[in-house]
Amino acid sequence: MNETTLRQERDGAVLVLTLDGGATRNAISPPVYRQVQAAVIDAAQDPGVRAIVLTGDNGFFSSGGNIHALKASAQKTMAEVTANTDALNVMIKALRDCPKPVVAAIEGGAAGAGASLALACDMIVAARDAKLVVAYVKVGLSPDGGVTHFLSRGLPRQLVAEMCMLGTPVGAERLFALGVVNALCDPGAARGEALALAQRLAAGATQAIARIKGLIEAAPDTDLATHLDREADGINRARFGDEAREGLAAFLDKRKPDFAGKG
Amino acid sequence: MNETTLRQERDGAVLVLTLDGGATRNAISPPVYRQVQAAVIDAAQDPGVRAIVLTGDNGFFSSGGNIHALKASAQKTMAEVTANTDALNVMIKALRDCPKPVVAAIEGGAAGAGASLALACDMIVAARDAKLVVAYVKVGLSPDGGVTHFLSRGLPRQLVAEMCMLGTPVGAERLFALGVVNALCDPGAARGEALALAQRLAAGATQAIARIKGLIEAAPDTDLATHLDREADGINRARFGDEAREGLAAFLDKRKPDFAGKG
Amino acid sequence: MNETTLRQERDGAVLVLTLDGGATRNAISPPVYRQVQAAVIDAAQDPGVRAIVLTGDNGFFSSGGNIHALKASAQKTMAEVTANTDALNVMIKALRDCPKPVVAAIEGGAAGAGASLALACDMIVAARDAKLVVAYVKVGLSPDGGVTHFLSRGLPRQLVAEMCMLGTPVGAERLFALGVVNALCDPGAARGEALALAQRLAAGATQAIARIKGLIEAAPDTDLATHLDREADGINRARFGDEAREGLAAFLDKRKPDFAGKG
Repeated sequence: MNETTLRQERDGAVLVLTLDGGATRNAISPPVYRQVQAAVIDAAQDPGVRAIVLTGDNGFFSSGGNIHALKASAQKTMAEVTANTDALNVMIKALRDCPKPVVAAIEGGAAGAGASLALACDMIVAARDAKLVVAYVKVGLSPDGGVTHFLSRGLPRQLVAEMCMLGTPVGAERLFALGVVNALCDPGAARGEALALAQRLAAGATQAIARIKGLIEAAPDTDLATHLDREADGINRARFGDEAREGLAAFLDKRKPDFAGKG
Repeated sequence: MNETTLRQERDGAVLVLTLDGGATRNAISPPVYRQVQAAVIDAAQDPGVRAIVLTGDNGFFSSGGNIHALKASAQKTMAEVTANTDALNVMIKALRDCPKPVVAAIEGGAAGAGASLALACDMIVAARDAKLVVAYVKVGLSPDGGVTHFLSRGLPRQLVAEMCMLGTPVGAERLFALGVVNALCDPGAARGEALALAQRLAAGATQAIARIKGLIEAAPDTDLATHLDREADGINRARFGDEAREGLAAFLDKRKPDFAGKG
Repeated sequence: MNETTLRQERDGAVLVLTLDGGATRNAISPPVYRQVQAAVIDAAQDPGVRAIVLTGDNGFFSSGGNIHALKASAQKTMAEVTANTDALNVMIKALRDCPKPVVAAIEGGAAGAGASLALACDMIVAARDAKLVVAYVKVGLSPDGGVTHFLSRGLPRQLVAEMCMLGTPVGAERLFALGVVNALCDPGAARGEALALAQRLAAGATQAIARIKGLIEAAPDTDLATHLDREADGINRARFGDEAREGLAAFLDKRKPDFAGKG
């Protein structure tokens, strides 16, 4: 069985992470979970990295868990199986906890845990013909990796039920219309478009973006009064920071701000 | 006053529940609430039933509470009135708690408590010209049956406010675009289309679908870390079950899985 | 610096609040926050006011915080800065707590705290070419005034991230398709269209509308069982009230209800 590996490249301040699993359509398993997690944690601490692109080679994002491995897991102990899903969850949480923005670039499709991985990113660029598929049910399983949580944040329950109970694929154009996909592109162009988006994020105010990610993450679980306080605390601190000094000065000088090294 | 009754039919493993209230457009009241609740609880325990269709005769889904009965309720005691809404709530909770998937088939429209009933289902098939109407406000009342909860799960607050504060009808085509309606059909075809969808659900992995229903129900009230654990617990147990054994084997054998009797 | 002021006009039972800040595109600051808050609290207590329109002059809704003032705030103490965001939050909470419905009429655009102000309203009428912009990040700041909370109620996280992390403007037509904007109109017509909508609200059942506003506000933070009880409590009380007596009688008499003085 071809194991998918994670390739890491740098393009300026953007870290590009590429799943490469050949004929498996970039199936993922605990070794890859740990590589993605480690790469994201390293990037979070590296001041040279200001945004991340996560993508897959071979015309696909990721097909999720390898079916052969899933079948073999019935021979494993519950402890071994639990360790595997724990590794998946730790990777997903690392992506959501990472203060740097992460852009998914989807060619072909993202299926199963691959859909969880795509939805754990902050933004999604997808080829027009790409699909999101949550078809665990077809092999008698229920979803993992947070996909039912992520889909429920912004999509009606009826559509989420159809995707998860029947495994109905949903295309990128529909997801764009619903606001889950940020940008559509021609097949083959997702990596390039996502990289361009990530470069814009990398040129932005990194500390402000980290604060925004935290606010958006907290919003659905926070009542308005508490959230207003949290937003106020964020902007009040930001006003005295380097990024606001540069950003406000540049705005009034009618020039582009230079946030590099301010974050 | 014609009382609406509930007709029960079986089509293979699908239970079809049909509201029939003649000229009242299937107005519902405590006797029907209790019939629906009982039918759903029985179906939950009947291994022969694997999916449910809920629909209405007479070219309509349900017009909700009977206006004559509502007017008469001003002559009742608060205790009697409370007993009525309690019966409504118990029916709605039975639908959400039912581990079998429920598909609403909507002709014409679903209004008031009829809209609550439709939205309490897992999926919705609607005739292209059908409408969802929450017009309690027009008779000086506020909504019941969970409709403000259900609408708030997936639709922006502004649209929910318009529907509930003005009673603006929203058509099936718009609800489809927003993801609340799963499939549109020609007028007269909703029952048949919903039955076909329910047959696909009934042929699916019943235990996995029950677990998925629970995950989707819990998602909006659960933080990511807790939800990841819940998903992991579900899939870990599923891996050792009959449905996964059959589903994974069938996938690798490139044949259709046979989940009957596995759930 | 031109200070924006708040103009108050009455059109029947509708209070029209207009931000007028000349060349600043109705930039807002603590003095205006306090005027809006006071106007809303007065309106809540005035039985003659049954709905509110909030709009801006000069072809714009509001550009949010004045950039010059924001730059000057770096010279202020944390206590002064905190007092300013507190005043903003108090205004936003007054709008959400107000039992009377509030309709935003947007020409041109709503930016920064102006976007928060628009989204704090119950419904939005917007000129077809108007835009919502949350571009704090461009000057090195994170959002305030509840905008990340409001956007997260009904829009997918990916779109909210794009709006807040990149400051991408989102047009009224897209927001209408997503359900955040209730009605589109030709440029210049937003005030008139919003006033017509508010007149319909003002002719409605004011107590029921207040109860509906409370239910919609509570829905996302409440589990289904608790919310069903809350809805039931509301409708049970309403059944014995003046509004239901008039509304049900009018319905059965096939005449328009007269809710004036019943609320």
